[in-house]
Amino acid sequence: MVKRVAVVLSGCGVYDGTEVHEASAVLVHLSRAGAKVQMFAPNVDQMHVVNHAIGKPTEEKRNVLQESARIARGDVTDLSKLDVSGHDALIIPGGFGVAKNLSTWATQGKDCSVQPEVEKAIKSFHKAGKPIGLCCISPVLAAKTLPGCEITVGHDSECEKWPYAQTACTMKEMGCKHVNKNVGEVHVDVKNKLVTTSAFMCNAPIHEIFDGVGVMVTDVLKLA
Amino acid sequence: MVKRVAVVLSGCGVYDGTEVHEASAVLVHLSRAGAKVQMFAPNVDQMHVVNHAIGKPTEEKRNVLQESARIARGDVTDLSKLDVSGHDALIIPGGFGVAKNLSTWATQGKDCSVQPEVEKAIKSFHKAGKPIGLCCISPVLAAKTLPGCEITVGHDSECEKWPYAQTACTMKEMGCKHVNKNVGEVHVDVKNKLVTTSAFMCNAPIHEIFDGVGVMVTDVLKLA
Repeated sequence: MVKRVAVVLSGCGVYDGTEVHEASAVLVHLSRAGAKVQMFAPNVDQMHVVNHAIGKPTEEKRNVLQESARIARGDVTDLSKLDVSGHDALIIPGGFGVAKNLSTWATQGKDCSVQPEVEKAIKSFHKAGKPIGLCCISPVLAAKTLPGCEITVGHDSECEKWPYAQTACTMKEMGCKHVNKNVGEVHVDVKNKLVTTSAFMCNAPIHEIFDGVGVMVTDVLKLA
Repeated sequence: MVKRVAVVLSGCGVYDGTEVHEASAVLVHLSRAGAKVQMFAPNVDQMHVVNHAIGKPTEEKRNVLQESARIARGDVTDLSKLDVSGHDALIIPGGFGVAKNLSTWATQGKDCSVQPEVEKAIKSFHKAGKPIGLCCISPVLAAKTLPGCEITVGHDSECEKWPYAQTACTMKEMGCKHVNKNVGEVHVDVKNKLVTTSAFMCNAPIHEIFDGVGVMVTDVLKLA
């Protein structure tokens, strides 16, 4: 049976959208496993646009669906049309777009809200007993939507290798169980069918990110 | 000895910039091989901006260097600063950005011109006897810059699998030797130290594109 996987994007580019290498790794591993992929993104304005060459916001406006189409090579569907019955699993790659366009994590942290269509998607897959794979910063969406869930965003102690370790601490404050994992590892919350991995939360070479995302994809498909 | 590889980008997104999955594959394979990568892009306006969700140009203006920084996670250098002596090899991933921003192939075909910094880069690496890896549409840059070279852009006979086969015919009209190759294969022009592969010129699953790019990277590093 071919596994049908919905992949939700949040733009194109690490600082204001989906991290392109995490998305690409997800697609390569799903393709190799023979899964059928449909990509989705919300048809909303980005929180802002970042000039990635200097890391600073610009005055431009861009649309999350349109920019996500850069990763999807044009083949992306409005997230409002996502129907859980047509898919066996949900995967959301990371990038600041998750914290800026799919939620307000970037500005509100643990008091954030999750974009309504994203919240609906996560709750629907969860309720249907279908697995959800999240990497990098996207586990914050589960932390907010599935209270008490178990996740990893890497390590909870800040150092050069784990520059965003504070995220793990915030998730614990939210009542989640955070499990320290290395970049090539995942944590599987069996009860919630939730597979998480740190990806670029870790300052690691890109092939290690690629491999870690691969473990996530494999474990999501096992649960599907 | 760590191999130092210059990777030249042309924006971010298949229809007006670098094809993100080809770029990501190049970076993953280089990383796994232990190469040291520096990314470059010309600091020029894109030919145009395409709304990738509908495949149509918009009225926006975007800068090639800034958009390339989305793939480079901020770490991209103005192509005018590329010095061949600091690198052992050159790789240019595909995407329409090659045909629109790094050359005028998209509008002028075999009568195109190559962006001066790109032309200088290719000629400098070639003259220094350092290998050049090109995939998808980027072999057109070599066809124009290194007359009579041997390349592949996949197959020269159009079908569902090879929608852009006309490109191969045009290259033959330009005096190049085109060698038909499948997506997982490369052609190596030993004399010119030129390694080419079809990548997304082939309508193939993304993991096959990834693997084909991997063969290109391996063969480039062997020649470096």
